[in-house]
Order: sequence, then C-alpha cells, then structure tokens
Amino acid sequence: MNTSESPVVVMKFGGTSVGDISRIKRVADLVAAFRQSDPGVRIVVVLSAMAGETNRLVRLAKECVDRPQPREMDVLLATGEQVTIALLAMRLCEMGISAKSLLAPQVRISTDARHTNAQIESIDSRVIEDIVAAGAIPIVAGFQGISEEGDITTLGRGGSDITAVALAAALRARTCYIYTDVPGVFSTDPRLDPNARLLERVSHEEMLEMASLGAKVLHPRSVYFAMRYAVPLVVLSTFAGACSPGINGTWIVREEELMEKPLVTGVTHRFDEAQLTVEGMPDDIESMSKLFDALAERDVYIDMISQEGVGSHLVNVSVTVPDEQSGLALETIRGIVPTLKANGVTVERDIAKVSVVGVGMRYHTGVAARAFRCLAREGISVQMVNTSEIKMSVLVTRKYCEAAVRALHAEFIG
Amino acid sequence: MNTSESPVVVMKFGGTSVGDISRIKRVADLVAAFRQSDPGVRIVVVLSAMAGETNRLVRLAKECVDRPQPREMDVLLATGEQVTIALLAMRLCEMGISAKSLLAPQVRISTDARHTNAQIESIDSRVIEDIVAAGAIPIVAGFQGISEEGDITTLGRGGSDITAVALAAALRARTCYIYTDVPGVFSTDPRLDPNARLLERVSHEEMLEMASLGAKVLHPRSVYFAMRYAVPLVVLSTFAGACSPGINGTWIVREEELMEKPLVTGVTHRFDEAQLTVEGMPDDIESMSKLFDALAERDVYIDMISQEGVGSHLVNVSVTVPDEQSGLALETIRGIVPTLKANGVTVERDIAKVSVVGVGMRYHTGVAARAFRCLAREGISVQMVNTSEIKMSVLVTRKYCEAAVRALHAEFIG
Repeated sequence: MNTSESPVVVMKFGGTSVGDISRIKRVADLVAAFRQSDPGVRIVVVLSAMAGETNRLVRLAKECVDRPQPREMDVLLATGEQVTIALLAMRLCEMGISAKSLLAPQVRISTDARHTNAQIESIDSRVIEDIVAAGAIPIVAGFQGISEEGDITTLGRGGSDITAVALAAALRARTCYIYTDVPGVFSTDPRLDPNARLLERVSHEEMLEMASLGAKVLHPRSVYFAMRYAVPLVVLSTFAGACSPGINGTWIVREEELMEKPLVTGVTHRFDEAQLTVEGMPDDIESMSKLFDALAERDVYIDMISQEGVGSHLVNVSVTVPDEQSGLALETIRGIVPTLKANGVTVERDIAKVSVVGVGMRYHTGVAARAFRCLAREGISVQMVNTSEIKMSVLVTRKYCEAAVRALHAEFIG
Repeated sequence: MNTSESPVVVMKFGGTSVGDISRIKRVADLVAAFRQSDPGVRIVVVLSAMAGETNRLVRLAKECVDRPQPREMDVLLATGEQVTIALLAMRLCEMGISAKSLLAPQVRISTDARHTNAQIESIDSRVIEDIVAAGAIPIVAGFQGISEEGDITTLGRGGSDITAVALAAALRARTCYIYTDVPGVFSTDPRLDPNARLLERVSHEEMLEMASLGAKVLHPRSVYFAMRYAVPLVVLSTFAGACSPGINGTWIVREEELMEKPLVTGVTHRFDEAQLTVEGMPDDIESMSKLFDALAERDVYIDMISQEGVGSHLVNVSVTVPDEQSGLALETIRGIVPTLKANGVTVERDIAKVSVVGVGMRYHTGVAARAFRCLAREGISVQMVNTSEIKMSVLVTRKYCEAAVRALHAEFIG
C-alpha cells in the first residue's frame, strides 16, 4: 500500500477519557477497533493528561511558591500528558499493535515563547509521517510545544484539542475525532432543557460562535484552527459503544457541506460576564472616546455595548466585560467619572448572556423580531442585544436564563 | 568575573531530599546559602524524583500492562525528575535567584538506546556553561538521557548520581556534592554496629569496593565514573545544619590525596548472594570447564569460587551467585549433574558476605591471617574467601553476620 495515498485520521482523547488505567485500556481497545474497522486508514492519537492531574500539579506549584514562574509551570504541567502517552503506547504494544509515544520536541510542535498560553507556529510533520509509514501509531502529547529557545511551552485552555487540530491540518487528515465524555454537540445545554437534541452537523463558523457563546464541548481556539485549515472535526463520546466514523457524534464541517442550513442551530448561554453602567454621562463623542480609551489602556475586553438616553444630552452607557475583569473595569471607570462629568458607575454581575446561532440567519431576516416577541411572551426583559451575521445574543437577568433558553429553543428548534 | 576561571560545583539531591514541598523549599534554602557562602563559585544542581514517585509510576505501568515496554517505561519514569526540577527552579526564582530547569535533551545527555538501563555516552556542556555564564543556576533532571534516535532513556539504579558525576566530569567541576539522608559514608553499617564511625576521606577505589560489597549510600556505577574522571565526590546530609564544603560529610578522592592510608577503612556486608555446591565431582579440569561453561552460557554471574577435596579425586565445588539468579543456576547445574558424574547439587541462601576494604592492604600483608584469627575467636566459621588488592571477603552463615561485622570492625578500626 502506498502510504502517501492512505488517509490519515487524528483521534484525540480528553482528560476524562484517560482518567484512570481502566479508561486508558478502553481507549486502547477503541483505537484497535477503529484500526480493524478501517485497515486502510493511518491513525494518529493525541492525548490529554488524566483528569485531575493538571490541577494536582498546579496545587503542588502553589504550595511551593506564590506566583509560579511561567517557564517552570510549563515544564511541570507537561508531565501530565507524558504519563498518559507512555501508558497508552505500552498498552497498544502489549496488544501487538506497534505504537510510539511522542513529545512535543520530537514532533517539533514549534510555538512562540508565551509560556502557559503559547500559540503554535509550525509543525514538522515528517517524524509522524515516518512512524505512520512504518505501520506504527504515533501517540502524541497534547497541550504542549517547544519554543525557539528549546523550552517546553503549553498551549493554555483547550490546548490538547488545538494540538489535535493542528496535527490534522499539518498531516492533511481526512478527519479529526475529538473523543470526550459527551455524545457530541447539542442544540442547547441538556441540563437546562430536556428538549436539547444532538446535532448531526454544524458548520465551523456556527461551532466557533457556539463555543465562544457558552457551548463548552470545544474551545473556540481549536474550532478557529479547524475552520482556518478546513479540517473536518467530529465530536463524539469515548464511552458510547460504536467507534466507526459517521455513526455517532457531531460533524463540524465547511458550510458548503451542510445538507440544510437551519435558521437557528443552537441556543447557548454563559454566566461569566459582568455589566457596567456609567450613569448620566454627557452624550458626546469626546466622553465616549475617553471612556473606551481608558478601558482599552487597561486591556479590558469589551463584549456588548448599549446606550440609553436619560434626559437632555445625558445617557447611561452599559458595557459587558469578562467577570474576572469587572473589578479592574470598575476601578478604571471610577477613576475617570469626574473627567467624564458622569454621575457614577454601577456593576451588575447577576446576568446571563443567551444566544441563538445559525448559518441560516445569513439568508433570512426576522430572527431578532421573533426572538424579542418570544421573550416578551415569557415576560423576560432584554437588557442588551448584540448581533452578527450568524448569531444574536441577549443579556437577561440571571434567574431568567433557563426560561429564555427554553423559550428560544422551543421557538426556533422545537 | 571571568566565568571560565570560576570554579563549578555540582550539588545533587536524592529522592528523600526532595520528597515533599517543604523539603524542596529546604533544598532551595541550602542552594541559596551555599551560593552566599562562596559567591565566586558557579552552582549546577541535579535532582532525583520525589521519593516514592518512581514506585508510583511503576505501579501505574504494571496496572496497565504485564510487561511494560522499556521505551515507554522511560517516557513515563522521566516525568518524576521533571516535576522536581520545575518546582525547585520556581522556588529559587521566587527567592530572587535566577534558575532554569533543564531536561536531558536540553543538556544533550546522550546515551545508548538500552532503555531503562542506558549508559551515558557524551554530554554537551555548552548549554549549561552558557546558563552559568549568564549568572543563573541550571537545575538538571537526573536519571535521564536521550538516545541517538531522540528517545528519552533512563540510566537505571543510581542514575541521578551518575548524571551528577558525569556533569561534574564534563564541566571539570571542583566538587560533586551528593546530598542524601545520611551524614556520609560510615566505616560500617551503624544499624549493625554502634561503633561505626563517619569517614572523613576515602579513596575512589575503596568506595567502589565498599559500594559493590554492600555500602548502599552510593551506587558503584557513579563511583566508577567519579574514579575514571577523577571527580572529587562528597557524600553529605541534606538535613544536617551546615552546607559549607569541607565541614560535613565524607570526601571521596584520589588515593594520592589521602592523608593516611589505613589498613582497613570499612567493613561491609550483603545478603543478596546464594551459594551453590556441586558435590562429589571428579577433580579434573574437564569437569570444571563443563560446569563453568554451562553457567556462562546462561549468563549467570559468579562471585566467589572454592573447592574442597572429599576423598580420592573427588571434590565439592562451591560458587556464589546473585540470589535472583540462584534458581536459574540450580536448574542449569542440575541439568549437567549426570554429565559431570557428580553426586548432586545443593543451594544455600542463608548466608552473608562480610568484607573488609582498605587501600592500606596494598602495602601491608597479614590482613587475612588477622581476620581469620579474629573470626575464630568468635567461633565463626568461614565458608568461602575472596580477596583482591584492597579487600577481603568472607562468606559466613547469615546469623553470624552481625557478630562478624562487629568483630572485624573492632579488630581493624576500633
């Protein structure tokens, strides 16, 4: 068989999938079954650390120092995946399947030097191609890379998914399977709404919006990578029976490959933003500039913006920011309240952002009108709105989050 | 300061010295104090894994497979030192001392590919020299190397000591300090004989014999390395107060540097050999050859040999072998008993080998005579004897081991 013509697939297993030895054995069985079901395919495996291991290592570091040095934190954290790849490789070897664990320096996963949150710059796929050509299965440590200086780096949240997608792109893989502890991507959070349905197919862009807007199954960075390099992703469960492609899970594909383009594909929510309102500010462009310049200077990330007139030439301006930045944002705005000639600033953390996402919005209008009518029927008032080509987000009081999700899901998805 | 003229010292800390976070903090304090006491010196640190961690990893592997694949075992085991070097480096950084953890591939500690028991072939000292020249302290992972194929290897028992000594040799270090949980090398095992005294100085060759003959504080391979490259070693306690060179511990130096050359420096013992006796074998060279050829073919390591006439042209031939090979040796000899025309073979595991070691034996005769007289006075019969230029070993029944050690220690050391 000519290896260069054999399709490659990447199988990535998350922390709960390799959470203990019995699960690592299950992963080995799954890889073996996949191989048997499709002998023509070349498999590359990417692993996370055992669930809980990264937290254990972080605790060790925190016991040792107040503020762990990022370079050394990466050396410490990288041991987590090193353990799981060695164990899975030895398990496969014992089953008579040739397999080799590989660390980031061996695969030459080059990153910048932003320790604990590095970005992949390039992957030298030759090492993996050689192993694959020799008939063995490379078992690659996710989450880690190597800087130009030869130091270990880690990729931050969602890092193992990013490794998998980046490898799939470098190897021009047919598919990148993301095995996790849920059956796939749902139309909304099943814990909030029992009508949530498993999605068969979503586009990269929808998934990117859904991941950014609260769907936790994938990190937005890995979806962005998959979109940019047109890597077909499949999210599926390690613990469900079957492992043949196409049977289970959710496919994340290019928009052109969607059979149908529903108006709304998913309804998501998140609780991790805070709303700040500057009250009684002069309604002029100069004050606005001062406000947003001050926040930009402190690197505060602003999500939604709205303003509301309150009397002659005065407005209340509201913004939402990540909750962990709300203290910084509050302090920053308080410092310029006199300069702004505003009355003051308030912060509201008891909020939820609920979003509807769907590529169909590109082709159909009226989603906003339907959404507002639907929420009004439930007596839910909308505090802020934010839209893009394929999504619409509304800010509501947190206690109405579940009701808003269910109402919007019933309205658009059923 | 011209770095090339600043002396380098290697400080190696074993598993109990970095056994938990409070001990890692203590090691950081010790390194800081050493630096302050001698600012002209350049420090390189080598660490073991936390005590117990290697066993934990071995257990994980054994849960996962029956026979762990050596290449993957090395990937797994190497995580142990990676954790401790990261933690110590972040601790030193937080104390305001520039430090950098380094893994074997970064230091280019090249080994052969004998996984789990690799031999160091070369070290590229430039990386460490650069870090040291920049005023930082390299914190190097002990026990591990990298093969020509770019795979992680480990050095087997005593591996971290070997890393330390090899680095000291490559850097032409002034001294290699081996910090451990005992105050140094004793003239005999203090648990067996309260008269055991801490030795101030021993020669490399004495230490090599003592390590091979039962002194557990250093592995013979690291002593051999130190002897071959004339690296001055100091064995000392992490947990004693002082850390200035020359105050505590045992110096292991070239024989020429010994102030005095005592007849006997140490009395050691070990229990891990078994004695096999072939009974009633014809006393001719042909039978002897058959016996030793058969054992050599099965790679049985033979330590002591003796023969004793039992009637006309018949002898009993005894050998000692490592206890873990006694089953193999017994089976091998049993298979050739008819060919040898011997009466049979017996195995005796209830034995101890007691040795006296000292460079003074080179220059003085009569040690054997004094030792035999001394043991005879105690009513201890000697079953076998083995001598070299600087040591004499006797095999005794195990229950007499402690009495033999005490008697010989009193006779020669006092």
